Amino acid sequence: MGTISVNIDVGKGYEVFIGRGILSCCGQLIAESVSPCRAAIITDSNVGKLYLETVTRSLVRAGFKPCAYTFEAGEASKNMETLSDALEFLADSGITRSDLVVALGGGVTGDMAGFASGVYLRGIKLVQIPTTLLSMVDSSVGGKTAVNLSAGKNLAGIFKQPEMVVCDTDCLHTLPEQTFADGAAEAIKYGVLTDRALFDGFEGGVDRGDLPRIIARCVEIKGKIAAADEFDVGQRRLLNLGHTIGHAVEKCSNFEIPHGHAVAAGMVMIARAGENLGYTQKGVAEAIAGVLRANGLPVSAPYGADELCKAAMSDKKRCGGSISLVFPEYIGSCRVVDRPVSELRDIIELGVGNQ
Amino acid sequence: MGTISVNIDVGKGYEVFIGRGILSCCGQLIAESVSPCRAAIITDSNVGKLYLETVTRSLVRAGFKPCAYTFEAGEASKNMETLSDALEFLADSGITRSDLVVALGGGVTGDMAGFASGVYLRGIKLVQIPTTLLSMVDSSVGGKTAVNLSAGKNLAGIFKQPEMVVCDTDCLHTLPEQTFADGAAEAIKYGVLTDRALFDGFEGGVDRGDLPRIIARCVEIKGKIAAADEFDVGQRRLLNLGHTIGHAVEKCSNFEIPHGHAVAAGMVMIARAGENLGYTQKGVAEAIAGVLRANGLPVSAPYGADELCKAAMSDKKRCGGSISLVFPEYIGSCRVVDRPVSELRDIIELGVGNQ
Repeated sequence: MGTISVNIDVGKGYEVFIGRGILSCCGQLIAESVSPCRAAIITDSNVGKLYLETVTRSLVRAGFKPCAYTFEAGEASKNMETLSDALEFLADSGITRSDLVVALGGGVTGDMAGFASGVYLRGIKLVQIPTTLLSMVDSSVGGKTAVNLSAGKNLAGIFKQPEMVVCDTDCLHTLPEQTFADGAAEAIKYGVLTDRALFDGFEGGVDRGDLPRIIARCVEIKGKIAAADEFDVGQRRLLNLGHTIGHAVEKCSNFEIPHGHAVAAGMVMIARAGENLGYTQKGVAEAIAGVLRANGLPVSAPYGADELCKAAMSDKKRCGGSISLVFPEYIGSCRVVDRPVSELRDIIELGVGNQ
Repeated sequence: MGTISVNIDVGKGYEVFIGRGILSCCGQLIAESVSPCRAAIITDSNVGKLYLETVTRSLVRAGFKPCAYTFEAGEASKNMETLSDALEFLADSGITRSDLVVALGGGVTGDMAGFASGVYLRGIKLVQIPTTLLSMVDSSVGGKTAVNLSAGKNLAGIFKQPEMVVCDTDCLHTLPEQTFADGAAEAIKYGVLTDRALFDGFEGGVDRGDLPRIIARCVEIKGKIAAADEFDVGQRRLLNLGHTIGHAVEKCSNFEIPHGHAVAAGMVMIARAGENLGYTQKGVAEAIAGVLRANGLPVSAPYGADELCKAAMSDKKRCGGSISLVFPEYIGSCRVVDRPVSELRDIIELGVGNQ
């Protein structure tokens, strides 16, 4: 079975390669776009153990000179201190403007490495090698990078488009069930956003034999939305479906509920609120909930409207006195609605409902 | 006497306002481009004492809601820790995407505040209010921001264009002589780069009565060069005249020799090397040295070629195996030359000469 390639028309444009076992030839793929140079691999302690050797070997075979920075796995590392350490590593390794950063890992790694590559010497080249379903379908495409501040998630970052993205679906075999489900939540989101057939395909859970095609479709959808709005000032906000309440759920759980799970609950809640407010067709919330359940995902969260609203208020999607919310209209179509911040609590209350 | 306005055609374009006493009406000037919003002033402990109240009052009068973050003055603060603190301040203050950062101070403040505004929520609006000659003629225009890493100066940063720049030349009256001379070095650099008449005007020292016009001319030159090359991949490297050796001088002195002074020495050394290599007309190095001396600036540094070369090797202008050097051809014209890194020591040796 061959490698699928999806073109992303953001910035100067780049390819996302998706295939089984392509990690072992990633150097060759990268060499098609990037001349041989130093390659600073940024990875975490879990992923490094599994794949650093394979990637390093492939890079060497293709003429690159790799070095590696490994940080402690986990969301807790996604902060300014790790960013600072990674930058010092790049400087100490003598990485120059013509060299390359390779992000090898999940969303945290992509964010860290993307941010670091975008500010080191005011920006050097980046290749993303996502190893989780979540990062393959979401964070590795579109160029958003960020770290968390004490006050909240993803509050500092930049837009940094990679030279290319390499997704080896074999990496997904090593994912814990919960981590896989986390990515499925974002994949289901793309179905709700624009593609009813994709959504329906998840009714019996993700078809693991069909992963390359599913990921390619998600990447294609994300690429199209991001291309129309690289800097996230308009329609790209659609991608935040389920995220305003989702981020609040993450925060209330002190980040014990993982991102995709929180977004899953957030999607159901905003759909339910939408049904009450007339933005969303009746039955959409339950349809979404059904597919999420089939994929081992939650459809609610153990927090009240007051608690969630307070957490959501620090969300960066707030713009002055209003907040952008994404409501499904029906499966396959959503819209962005700006509402006064003062209404947020009541909207969340409608979403929490009497579960 | 009126306010001079220079248009900078970088990014979406912005104005630099230069005038005497315009700090007290900065809010009004800003309100012409930015709708009333929260305004997070970032300043240092020296400048804050002198001007924070004036700026805050003017912002309030113009309808803005200001708050202020003050960090310890000095180059030592220009690091990832202060950046991180500033970002936490912005988050804790509830600054949103539609709000504004105001950089009030010299080059360090402009760099810190520019970097922070460019990554907070992936970028919010910025106004630069430079208060030193160096930052008025140089760092506040063109959008380069950076912090230092352990390995060297300005190794991490971004390009961030401001909404506008407000230069009150009255601020320069409070500058220590050495700090004023530091800015004069960069002003003289613009003369060497493209404007013989500007250069000749510095023969008897900077005419303080003519500061607004001199600053406007420097800003105009920098703006034109930066506009042609926003992301510093081509002719913008001209602005690095004197900087490769200059940065090495700063580094060898453990940053006790200030930036402009180091650049002054660097300009003379690279001109002398250029004369020896045939890039530079005979007598140019001595002409530059004469004007620098008249402005209280050094024309050499107490370091040998080996020491300077080693320090220069970590300079970010290195691109793989070659290094970009800027040689004056004659006063008013310079060129960028790429030379193999292996030749750098000998080139510096020619510049050090037998002083």
